[in-house]
Amino acid sequence: MKSGASEAGEDSKDSKPKGNRGISFLDFIMRIVAIVGTLGSAIAMGTSNEDLPSFKQFIRFKAEYKDLPTFTFFVVANGIVSAYLVVSLVLSILHIVMSGARITRVVLIFFDTVMMAFLTSGASAAAAIVYLAHKGNARANWIAICQQYNSFCDRASGSLVGSFIGVLVFLLLIILSALALSRN
Amino acid sequence: MKSGASEAGEDSKDSKPKGNRGISFLDFIMRIVAIVGTLGSAIAMGTSNEDLPSFKQFIRFKAEYKDLPTFTFFVVANGIVSAYLVVSLVLSILHIVMSGARITRVVLIFFDTVMMAFLTSGASAAAAIVYLAHKGNARANWIAICQQYNSFCDRASGSLVGSFIGVLVFLLLIILSALALSRN
Repeated sequence: MKSGASEAGEDSKDSKPKGNRGISFLDFIMRIVAIVGTLGSAIAMGTSNEDLPSFKQFIRFKAEYKDLPTFTFFVVANGIVSAYLVVSLVLSILHIVMSGARITRVVLIFFDTVMMAFLTSGASAAAAIVYLAHKGNARANWIAICQQYNSFCDRASGSLVGSFIGVLVFLLLIILSALALSRN
Repeated sequence: MKSGASEAGEDSKDSKPKGNRGISFLDFIMRIVAIVGTLGSAIAMGTSNEDLPSFKQFIRFKAEYKDLPTFTFFVVANGIVSAYLVVSLVLSILHIVMSGARITRVVLIFFDTVMMAFLTSGASAAAAIVYLAHKGNARANWIAICQQYNSFCDRASGSLVGSFIGVLVFLLLIILSALALSRN
């Protein structure tokens, strides 16, 4: 513990690293929340498919996430981000033990920011398509497919929630890391 | 200058704030780049419209960004982010003068992260729709409108570039701020 604080260089007051330990612990808990959110989103979207009772046998009435490239991107993004979050738990635990660490916090801010952008990108792109599926667009002649594939649409819409919770958690994680850095 | 460094609390070595001044100057330059990118994107998308030679007078053959809610969101997001960037220049200049500042850097990281998420959201949602406009989707019966509105589509696609440059700049800005904080 002391070696971790000395690694960071100066460690003038004992109270500050203690405060950072609280921040690091919160960081750990929030990463668990984000893992649940993003993994849940990936699974919810990845397992979504709907078979419609088909009257004409030669037409395939089935909807799944692979039909829309944006939804595939959403599943991949959520999968990668949740895997990253699991790996990042190692650094998070390290910060609970070595609450004075600086370099690893900057590294964590970097990767957290990249992953937040990646997750936001996947979630927003999917949200744009879900919105289109619900509302359609008369000017572009894009019909609202949700009237047909109701359960598929509900599943896709619901899976966005976990992803956006993940984005919010990343926002808080970055602020917490910056706060911990400023207190070192 | 000295008062700014003392505001931050400890200021043990003179070399570090000097390094931070370089970082703050880079921060300022990059914000200018991001302003050009996001404002350019907002204007490019906001002024895009295409009139097609119409054979049937009663059908309106015109495409503009307001036809697609996602593109409206894109213009609004880019407009708000570029306005934020102009305001943030004040803090950026402050950091060049007071290179030891901590609290304002944490504040800047917070708002930069929020704005990055907002910009990424707008850019990705618009990219999903642009992709759809180019490729269409056979499974959802959404046609590729770009075959019809070629110049509108080119304009919309091009306007994404400035926005994504803005996202990259935000990523660098957040890392630079974290680096400056860790060196304080």
